[in-house]
Amino acid sequence: MKVESIFITGVGQTKYGKLEGQSLSSLIYEAASMTLLDASIARSQIDAIVISNLASNRFNDQQNLTALCADVLGLSGTPAFRTGASSASGAAAIQQAVMMVKSGMFDNVLVIGVELMNQVPTDVSTSILANSTHPWEQEQGITIPALAAMCTRLNMIHNGLTREQLALVAVKNHKNALLNPLAHFHHKKVTIEDVMNSPIIADPLRLYDFSPRSDGAAAIIISSGKSVKKFCEQPIRITGIGAATDVFAYMDRENLMSLDATRLAAERALKTAGMTQKEIDILEVHDAFTPLELVNLEDMCFFERGSAGKALEEGITEREGQLPVNVSGGLKAKGHPVGATGIGQVLELTLQLRNEAGKRQVPGVETGLAHAIGGFGNNVFVTILSRT
Amino acid sequence: MKVESIFITGVGQTKYGKLEGQSLSSLIYEAASMTLLDASIARSQIDAIVISNLASNRFNDQQNLTALCADVLGLSGTPAFRTGASSASGAAAIQQAVMMVKSGMFDNVLVIGVELMNQVPTDVSTSILANSTHPWEQEQGITIPALAAMCTRLNMIHNGLTREQLALVAVKNHKNALLNPLAHFHHKKVTIEDVMNSPIIADPLRLYDFSPRSDGAAAIIISSGKSVKKFCEQPIRITGIGAATDVFAYMDRENLMSLDATRLAAERALKTAGMTQKEIDILEVHDAFTPLELVNLEDMCFFERGSAGKALEEGITEREGQLPVNVSGGLKAKGHPVGATGIGQVLELTLQLRNEAGKRQVPGVETGLAHAIGGFGNNVFVTILSRT
Repeated sequence: MKVESIFITGVGQTKYGKLEGQSLSSLIYEAASMTLLDASIARSQIDAIVISNLASNRFNDQQNLTALCADVLGLSGTPAFRTGASSASGAAAIQQAVMMVKSGMFDNVLVIGVELMNQVPTDVSTSILANSTHPWEQEQGITIPALAAMCTRLNMIHNGLTREQLALVAVKNHKNALLNPLAHFHHKKVTIEDVMNSPIIADPLRLYDFSPRSDGAAAIIISSGKSVKKFCEQPIRITGIGAATDVFAYMDRENLMSLDATRLAAERALKTAGMTQKEIDILEVHDAFTPLELVNLEDMCFFERGSAGKALEEGITEREGQLPVNVSGGLKAKGHPVGATGIGQVLELTLQLRNEAGKRQVPGVETGLAHAIGGFGNNVFVTILSRT
Repeated sequence: MKVESIFITGVGQTKYGKLEGQSLSSLIYEAASMTLLDASIARSQIDAIVISNLASNRFNDQQNLTALCADVLGLSGTPAFRTGASSASGAAAIQQAVMMVKSGMFDNVLVIGVELMNQVPTDVSTSILANSTHPWEQEQGITIPALAAMCTRLNMIHNGLTREQLALVAVKNHKNALLNPLAHFHHKKVTIEDVMNSPIIADPLRLYDFSPRSDGAAAIIISSGKSVKKFCEQPIRITGIGAATDVFAYMDRENLMSLDATRLAAERALKTAGMTQKEIDILEVHDAFTPLELVNLEDMCFFERGSAGKALEEGITEREGQLPVNVSGGLKAKGHPVGATGIGQVLELTLQLRNEAGKRQVPGVETGLAHAIGGFGNNVFVTILSRT
């Protein structure tokens, strides 16, 4: 079934980074207010809220985010849902909102993602994040970075992936983030040497192969065609959504070198959009670890197996290249406030398609694809946008 | 907009109670397997999963429930979402699934709720549950039972609610649970004296005014009309859904004697169903605390303000009465495995409408209403069912 007549009518986000002195409420308020302003929509026209977050009950002692969110925004009374799928929660929330509007029950759904994870000590947030793996993996002390390291090593052995290519993902995405004033690493240029000399976390992956722990919030408004005619000057169309899960424990999967849920979610999204890979102009790809950008581009068939690294070396995925990837800076350098991340990706594409991305604008983009992962390839959500 | 052609095609649940030796996986598997069997549907026909849970990341060290659920059920690949709204999570998940099917994107959505909260010490689960109140309330040590006590006292002073009527809610619902073999308190008859002599928790509320901490899982399948013609002999129709939030902090609300989100959610659900209160034959009402059953029945306009207690005394809400309420035993005696609760309520109504509720069957019921609360009246979801 096609996703027809579903639009993004407003976007807004906070700075990503270690945000001191902020609360869940202040972040939600800032991102949502900007979004309402961007859409030129009155609060009273928002008829439902979907909130995305990983673990506010552990990071912030707050479990009741639907109530908090409606209250902070002066929208008490409005139906509110919390939707998630581990680190792909923001993307899951968008897809739920798309279906809520498509069902005809709601016309304008405000989707907000938030994470405030730097107010607990690093060992606490590490233990919280570790709870995303299979119980047997947890028992053995296997973490997601360790799984990523195994997947990376296999790709180095069998698919020609090089250590330098991984470093180059970080270099590219940090370079892109220099042009994104809201990025966590807006001011941090990174060289290949910086990455190669950073401490080993899970061999062969080093510190600079990983995204940071960011605080931040991002929001968008999803609207029906009926509603969009009334108030929005430059709506962006959501033309495709696709989601997929994979076998939970990594070692139980048939293929350890790729993420099958990424392949499946992308196939489904492209099918609902009635598009092929060649028609996509720009991508935001889940790069919590540098190898993921390359492996996922191959899983989604934008490049043949083992050739995404070469495409990167040739500049194809640079901002000025034929297929720009993670122009925002990606999770790697824009940052990864978990609950907000998937929404922030779609926000970046929206700005690009509206030609409002400032210094990092890619000229003439008409379509974009956002890809988000929860767990190590466990839950994948792909969303496709087009200029209307 | 009306909810048309959305059906419940299968239901299943585990025993509710302190379930030793169980895991999230075993509970999910048991409830879902029974549901698939009940629907006579093949796993391959399930095209999406929605999972509901309060805090598996704190009760069970597991954050990635979408992945776990798809994996346990042999449904890896299938899109999976986690939906919640505090203690109304199960009801929120059902409403999301209804909209997913209504959107046309999916034909058969499996909705599963699970909670396994008795494997952590009571003081830990208490602190986890306490995180559902407003930050300022938390700072002051105000818990949900304390808010319920304040609301109760005000209703005793101004609306003629009596301490004995509260006890009678517990007596009625425990009596009903005696006929429900899956209830937490299947074997525990309770008298007015038992309630009145139980320890004070938050004056005037006593231990036996509260629902227990239950483990358990419940599942249902939501299907499109297209799908239902193929395989289901006795589909039950979902005719109305309504949701609402309220001002987060209780003391900030205009009226402290009722729950406005309950009124609003019920109004919305009845409107989408095109029905009035008089057309509802049976109810499952959120009675985590005994006063809630009475106050919510009044908020939903089934009884005038201050008269639900009297209706209870007259036997109107008994299983044999004109308007049976909580025939399952309610949260009070059937139990309250938080993530499963809202799904279990809809399951009970489905069994009743199918005439399959065994010894507790109410004869001739054609319509039912389920009401679920998250937080202290913060998020309310009302769902209306009809025989087709």
